[in-house]
Amino acid sequence: MRRLRLLLEYDGTQFCGFQRQPERRSVQGALEGALARVCGHPVEVVGAGRTDAGVHAVGQVAHFDTSGRIPAERVPQAVNSLTGPELVVRRAEEAEAGFHARFDAARRTYHYYVSREQPSPFLARYAVYERGLRADAAERIREALRALEGKHDFAAFAAVGSVTHTTVRTVFCTGVSEEGPLLRLEIAADAFLRNMVRLVAGLALEIGRGREEPEAMARVLAAGRWARLAAPPHGLFLVRVEYPDGFPGPSGTEPFLF
Amino acid sequence: MRRLRLLLEYDGTQFCGFQRQPERRSVQGALEGALARVCGHPVEVVGAGRTDAGVHAVGQVAHFDTSGRIPAERVPQAVNSLTGPELVVRRAEEAEAGFHARFDAARRTYHYYVSREQPSPFLARYAVYERGLRADAAERIREALRALEGKHDFAAFAAVGSVTHTTVRTVFCTGVSEEGPLLRLEIAADAFLRNMVRLVAGLALEIGRGREEPEAMARVLAAGRWARLAAPPHGLFLVRVEYPDGFPGPSGTEPFLF
Repeated sequence: MRRLRLLLEYDGTQFCGFQRQPERRSVQGALEGALARVCGHPVEVVGAGRTDAGVHAVGQVAHFDTSGRIPAERVPQAVNSLTGPELVVRRAEEAEAGFHARFDAARRTYHYYVSREQPSPFLARYAVYERGLRADAAERIREALRALEGKHDFAAFAAVGSVTHTTVRTVFCTGVSEEGPLLRLEIAADAFLRNMVRLVAGLALEIGRGREEPEAMARVLAAGRWARLAAPPHGLFLVRVEYPDGFPGPSGTEPFLF
Repeated sequence: MRRLRLLLEYDGTQFCGFQRQPERRSVQGALEGALARVCGHPVEVVGAGRTDAGVHAVGQVAHFDTSGRIPAERVPQAVNSLTGPELVVRRAEEAEAGFHARFDAARRTYHYYVSREQPSPFLARYAVYERGLRADAAERIREALRALEGKHDFAAFAAVGSVTHTTVRTVFCTGVSEEGPLLRLEIAADAFLRNMVRLVAGLALEIGRGREEPEAMARVLAAGRWARLAAPPHGLFLVRVEYPDGFPGPSGTEPFLF
């Protein structure tokens, strides 16, 4: 048996999320279907992050085992010719036998795109239109997100009913970039709770609209509870997943919009 | 009655083309449906270019007449809240009573995008994947397109069976730009025959692949006939339509990809 790891991009619009679900089109299911044909045997794929329905990825990582002999470098083209254009294997390579896409991931980066203006039809699926943002929304959100940096209990930003043994995570850095009418919220952590980025973005947008003050982020974090107004999924991109051995390298992935 | 003119963007993927067709979703139909609600009476829309199914626009222009009183500057938001995100009215303004979006247009510009690499899932609907291009494809195509410049009979690049009183058109300028794996073919003319840009792009891609020499473009143009291998519609954008009175102005439209 060989273990291979993959660098993936997908448009989440048409998927029910990363994780396989009966009767629905998932990223995992589409990938496993194509890999089974390429490898000649059933394949189970493990992804670094189980993105929700509608969430996109430019730097998802996954692994799978195969007894097949296809050279790793031929996997991308073989798989890409079987899946639709909405799912692309960008790179494939041999991994250590013990490599685990989810458990070994040391750092994950998400971006969330918001547009102050009606987005063009070509960006509407990738940026949330929010006409109520204040002129100083970027500064307000930047200040608010900074309160998340460090090791904290993020229970306030966990999906209701999700089961996890701990809600403590370490946020390495946060930021807000602006380009024309677009705002990009950035957050990197060792790992994320289910819905965490969309819940953080939901409160960040309230702060950007002026309905909450920037201090609300720290207050909610400390209180451990919140109304849980998740921002829509289609503004969210899993941009990068990094491993202790350096994968995927400096030029591994590039953000889509800017 | 007032005549208004509109600057439009649309993602052609889900439309049967610009022109209204029974039982199908057209740009014209979607726009007329929304405008009828905004204006309070049936509306007929005339577009500058009748783009095919799958062809996109960032700078389409259209006009319509209304007895309604809505201020022109409020039309975009009113219409955009009724159509899906795939069709956006970017600007609306009062026009002269005699203004005609199609007959008055003095110059139309189209771009055609080709990718040498598997496009990301976010670009796959807007650039044609062509892995067989030669390294010098841009120069070859640039040279070939130059043969089209000037006033010529473009019968070789007209859709079979299309009816028009003359196949003479004036191509003002052509070009090829390159950015990373993307090639952009550019062509501006007073007007285009039905399918003309896709037929030109089809031959240009044959030249880029090395299956035809750059001279083939001039030869086909002079011969007035060709095998008519149209390039796929989804790489094509109507970028700009210009009028003698200056509309839409220097910052009217911006190309989507680069």
